Amino acid sequence: MDIVIPLFDDFEPLDAIGPYQMLGHLPGATVRFVAVGERGAVADGIGGLRLDVPARYAEVEGCDVLLVPGGRGTRRLLADDALLDWLRRVHGTTRFTASVCTGALLLGAAGLLDGLDATTHWAAAGELAAYGAAFTPERVVRRGRIVTAAGVSAGIDMALHLAALLTDETTARAIQLHAEYDPVPPFDSGSWAKASPVVRERIKDLR
Amino acid sequence: MDIVIPLFDDFEPLDAIGPYQMLGHLPGATVRFVAVGERGAVADGIGGLRLDVPARYAEVEGCDVLLVPGGRGTRRLLADDALLDWLRRVHGTTRFTASVCTGALLLGAAGLLDGLDATTHWAAAGELAAYGAAFTPERVVRRGRIVTAAGVSAGIDMALHLAALLTDETTARAIQLHAEYDPVPPFDSGSWAKASPVVRERIKDLR
Repeated sequence: MDIVIPLFDDFEPLDAIGPYQMLGHLPGATVRFVAVGERGAVADGIGGLRLDVPARYAEVEGCDVLLVPGGRGTRRLLADDALLDWLRRVHGTTRFTASVCTGALLLGAAGLLDGLDATTHWAAAGELAAYGAAFTPERVVRRGRIVTAAGVSAGIDMALHLAALLTDETTARAIQLHAEYDPVPPFDSGSWAKASPVVRERIKDLR
Repeated sequence: MDIVIPLFDDFEPLDAIGPYQMLGHLPGATVRFVAVGERGAVADGIGGLRLDVPARYAEVEGCDVLLVPGGRGTRRLLADDALLDWLRRVHGTTRFTASVCTGALLLGAAGLLDGLDATTHWAAAGELAAYGAAFTPERVVRRGRIVTAAGVSAGIDMALHLAALLTDETTARAIQLHAEYDPVPPFDSGSWAKASPVVRERIKDLR
């Protein structure tokens, strides 16, 4: 089982690493990162991570799961015809094509979400409509072979859904147990609807 | 605010990247990865990630937060006197010294958990006692300046606690909103107590 995650400069780290953590332990699966861009190095959007990613995305002709993370770097790629062509071509070979966060905008720009329900980071919800998708405010939205997750941490939940689809529910539950994914957030501000006006405002002060 | 995360070969990726995602957006904070070992490259325990980490841990003389991830690689370091000396020395300078998963064993081996309540990955609970710590089956355990988290994904919850301690609750909630951390796991098998015998058994088949 070949799972491919393209990485580009200014990707959001947990978008990619959350699903990697979950799917990387799947029996019979290999998760491969491939670089979008010329170099073998990719830097994340926070600025502390530098990954050595020698494989380029164009080397991949097909895979079982294509999983596209998000982050600020997506905005520079929305008109990258070579990448969008590749997304369409590889999507033609997959069992599942998935996105986390603003990775959905790349699937949208490639024309893969036209007429579909999909989700993305709350801050990018309005942008999905430009691609013919109907924003659906759920954590994970699956329509056939296309699975989209909400922002950043939602990729963890999505990956558990995918793990069950790719193997079986017992294996997916074992992966959840291995990662001790029994979340107890100390606060309840993880969605736009739940966050107070003062919390929403504070977003502007984050790094 | 200087937050330091030492990385070593065979670290568990989400142990490090979960807290990095949360603390990396903290206003006024910088999260730095430092390599344990001679090389500037660190490989994770799943085998798909290779990080370029040019700074070595020995270059750090102090920091505000020292956060030690876990993973299989910890076992090779439990008798590494230079690293354990460094952990003790840097702990003397921190506001908080923290661990995720089996990172607690490294804090324990350095003598920092003697006589304390602490937590770790469920599979390593028995090993904590050798270091004089009392395993406490909670998601996040704080005793003064020492904060330990349970396995892998628990570092995300811990980092939100730390974010509130380092800044304020509104900022921590804004970070939660930014990461859309409103978890909806599709299953409820994230702790040993909640997992069925067949799920516990399936752990052996994971990669």
